[in-house]
Amino acid sequence: MSEATEPINPEVEGQTGPSKSELKKRAKAAEKEKKAAEKAAKQKEMADQQAAAEVDYATEFYGPLPLNQSQSRPRLPRVDIASLASRDGETVLLRARIHNSRAQGAKMVFLNLRQRTDSVQALMMVAPEKVSKQMVKWTAGLDLESIVLVEGVVKKSPEIIKSASVGTVEVQVSKLFLIAGVEARLPFTVDDADRAEAEIEASGDQFNRVLLDTRLNNRIVDLRSQTNQAVFKLQAAVGDLFRQFLHFQGAATESGASVFKVSYFKGNAFLAQSPQLAKQMAIAADFERVYEIGPVFRAEDSNTHRHLTEFMGLDLEMTIEEHYHEVMEMLDNLFISIFRGLREQYKKEIEVVGKHFPADEFKWREGPEGTLKLSFKEAVDLLVEDGVPREDLDDINTENEKKLGRIVRAKYETDYYIIDKFPMELRPFYTMPDPNDPTLSNSYDFFMRGEEILSGAQRVHDPKLLEKQMRAKGVDPESMKGYMDAFRLGCSPHGGGGIGLERVLMLFLKLNNIRRASLFPRDPKRLEP
Amino acid sequence: MSEATEPINPEVEGQTGPSKSELKKRAKAAEKEKKAAEKAAKQKEMADQQAAAEVDYATEFYGPLPLNQSQSRPRLPRVDIASLASRDGETVLLRARIHNSRAQGAKMVFLNLRQRTDSVQALMMVAPEKVSKQMVKWTAGLDLESIVLVEGVVKKSPEIIKSASVGTVEVQVSKLFLIAGVEARLPFTVDDADRAEAEIEASGDQFNRVLLDTRLNNRIVDLRSQTNQAVFKLQAAVGDLFRQFLHFQGAATESGASVFKVSYFKGNAFLAQSPQLAKQMAIAADFERVYEIGPVFRAEDSNTHRHLTEFMGLDLEMTIEEHYHEVMEMLDNLFISIFRGLREQYKKEIEVVGKHFPADEFKWREGPEGTLKLSFKEAVDLLVEDGVPREDLDDINTENEKKLGRIVRAKYETDYYIIDKFPMELRPFYTMPDPNDPTLSNSYDFFMRGEEILSGAQRVHDPKLLEKQMRAKGVDPESMKGYMDAFRLGCSPHGGGGIGLERVLMLFLKLNNIRRASLFPRDPKRLEP
Repeated sequence: MSEATEPINPEVEGQTGPSKSELKKRAKAAEKEKKAAEKAAKQKEMADQQAAAEVDYATEFYGPLPLNQSQSRPRLPRVDIASLASRDGETVLLRARIHNSRAQGAKMVFLNLRQRTDSVQALMMVAPEKVSKQMVKWTAGLDLESIVLVEGVVKKSPEIIKSASVGTVEVQVSKLFLIAGVEARLPFTVDDADRAEAEIEASGDQFNRVLLDTRLNNRIVDLRSQTNQAVFKLQAAVGDLFRQFLHFQGAATESGASVFKVSYFKGNAFLAQSPQLAKQMAIAADFERVYEIGPVFRAEDSNTHRHLTEFMGLDLEMTIEEHYHEVMEMLDNLFISIFRGLREQYKKEIEVVGKHFPADEFKWREGPEGTLKLSFKEAVDLLVEDGVPREDLDDINTENEKKLGRIVRAKYETDYYIIDKFPMELRPFYTMPDPNDPTLSNSYDFFMRGEEILSGAQRVHDPKLLEKQMRAKGVDPESMKGYMDAFRLGCSPHGGGGIGLERVLMLFLKLNNIRRASLFPRDPKRLEP
Repeated sequence: MSEATEPINPEVEGQTGPSKSELKKRAKAAEKEKKAAEKAAKQKEMADQQAAAEVDYATEFYGPLPLNQSQSRPRLPRVDIASLASRDGETVLLRARIHNSRAQGAKMVFLNLRQRTDSVQALMMVAPEKVSKQMVKWTAGLDLESIVLVEGVVKKSPEIIKSASVGTVEVQVSKLFLIAGVEARLPFTVDDADRAEAEIEASGDQFNRVLLDTRLNNRIVDLRSQTNQAVFKLQAAVGDLFRQFLHFQGAATESGASVFKVSYFKGNAFLAQSPQLAKQMAIAADFERVYEIGPVFRAEDSNTHRHLTEFMGLDLEMTIEEHYHEVMEMLDNLFISIFRGLREQYKKEIEVVGKHFPADEFKWREGPEGTLKLSFKEAVDLLVEDGVPREDLDDINTENEKKLGRIVRAKYETDYYIIDKFPMELRPFYTMPDPNDPTLSNSYDFFMRGEEILSGAQRVHDPKLLEKQMRAKGVDPESMKGYMDAFRLGCSPHGGGGIGLERVLMLFLKLNNIRRASLFPRDPKRLEP
């Protein structure tokens, strides 16, 4: 686009006959015409000159690419932004989002280019035969979050660029093409999504706060933030560490007989409330030790910070030789291994998340002292000592659970502990009763920061006792024939547990709301996106 | 238990006067009485002797255990049967099923004890103060499939015991307790379940054939067979190898930017027909490369050997830089890695399954020649050459697919190949059309032994084209707003594919029916067990 020219406003007056005034007028008109012609000529010349000067010599170097339908495959290698620090002087090609953009006059534009958790500053500057003013203008006009293909030279930056994760270099752009634009209004910028509360407060609330609901309504943009990219790397890590520990357990035994190897899925005419029944049937079918990572659905109308209608269940079940504490200890070792793995292998991600969600570092006990194990009764006693009326403690409600978490932290310096020996009436029909006190059961919950993250137990493997307990809880054994048959055909003593993955992640990182630990969270009020 | 003693029946008569005949009678009676008393005394003596001989000195060494409610934890180590070959002379404790049982007279019983795929012969023989006749009798009476706790001494066997997987030793039993019995009639023995068709035929049909439906109705027992234990080790292996390859791909790049790390689950108000939409949304949220292993539900009424209403989907999606063949080649490498991993790391299991399901070894091409890739048109041409009328080949139906598999095997010596460039009208709305011929698409299927195991494509990342294609297929874009928004907010070019895990396993092992590759298969007619 050419610059706006100043309007020309010549004065015009009338002339009548050869009167003096008329002649004067004519002369004036002629003069005017001449001037106008001269002016026009001059303007044309200027315009020609300007046009000549503004011929866009860079048309080949920028613009929207045709829709990628795999027209060609020149096999030009792309590089990652993370690798740029060591590429000083190289000409590179990369695909990235425009995270931020700032024009400086008509001749220069600064871009912040982003790939997942990495970003770098890019600079486009007018240069004869290379970068035109039109190219700069077009680039400066691109929407944030556009996906571009950039060619440029990597140059050491004179000073560290704080706004970029790779701050020691910048990219001097020679070509820039649009791969995919943005066709909707951005609900918020990824910068806004990533800004920590502390920074917003420090700025005197100059920045936009992006509320959780706005984030979840626009989850696609929210997930692009550095914080969320780290959260979901950690989410995948919990699953990986779970599997790694169980596979290692398998490999550590003398034979293939006791491995955790059948990871599987169950099916039901109803959605799996949990893989509980199928896990037990797999035990009856002699798989010895099974685990599953899969979606679990709960149709409960629980609108809390820690309930989802769909969550990821990490479930395991194993035979026991003598005592259900064999399972409980296996699960305990599993958690220690997950905590340790996260802290040792994912330091960077935990730090990134910590900027957005500041938290006391998660504490657990290791060594000979081991994990704190309380009986349900001991847990109740701790609460009573703290002033909770004993008659309120037939069950420990959410509020008291949290209180117990604080008491335990103060007294035992741990955020992670186990409560064993729950009252039988609080547990499902398939739970094995205590051998000495039938009002108690061989069952346990695991806790992180005062919230339950695992529930497990020894199960009833005897069909007669199972039937009796089903009837006592109002379940018709005939309605679960396939399940019952598994025990009638002979089943080893066994136990297990189910872990809510999102809860573990939420509590380890102190995200405060479970929705933040779920890619596309589902609750009673949210099915989209 | 003591043996029944013979009834003693002394005759009793009245006495009248001392007549000759009467005296004779008396003498006779006295004689009789004396004899009877003598007999009784002798019998008593014998009974006493027998009773003394049959005092059960072994009551502490056998019998049913009380229900395991974790009463105690003596921490007695158990061993695996697989480890017994190297334990000659050791006294061992183990938990196992009674796979087979054969009494020899009243003094000896042979047991075949089983743990998953391992078995060993155990011998119980009467011995003074150690093993009583009662103990042998009770043991011989235990149901097959009972779970027992056995103590015994491992002894080198004079000859290889063919009926056991550990055939060089046997266990001489000193104690045997019942952990869990069988309370239902066994529908078939695990031996029957495991017997190969060839062996049944060789026997002149002396053995029971267990039909697939009977197996699936009693899946718990069926799954205990060596064949099935191997099948499901291999099933887990496919998932493991899938993950291993993708994680390695991640680690092999220069940074963390392009890793396959977000394995995740999707949720919908409807059951996931496939994670397709969620995968694409994760790409729009900049996860770059995602995979998922999870249950996929299909409500189709397809009663075939290769359809399930619930199967395990291995799904992946990744951005592409230039061409969708980047994805296709990644998937190809993934399969080669799975095939190679199975063959190299699971030789034993493949052999076990091969006994029951004899199959030509699965063939694929490696090296510079690489995987066979045909266009849809080339595939059609091969079929036409083979005599199929061209007009029947707008789509390639199941029968022709199989025929193509045979043609390809004969011509190219491979059971694994790719068909690329499917007609657009055969593919869903989210498929990217070919850049030159709009009737074709950038999509591919992968095949094993003439059956499809993967379907994939470049996807449409442009919201306008996507809307157009939705409307053309009769889908209202407003009904999928969350999905559409993902593209309106900017999305990179991308592609992916979905693999049916059970099909891969069925075809690699030639199980001939997909139900055999699923732990608890679900089809339109089966929801139990």
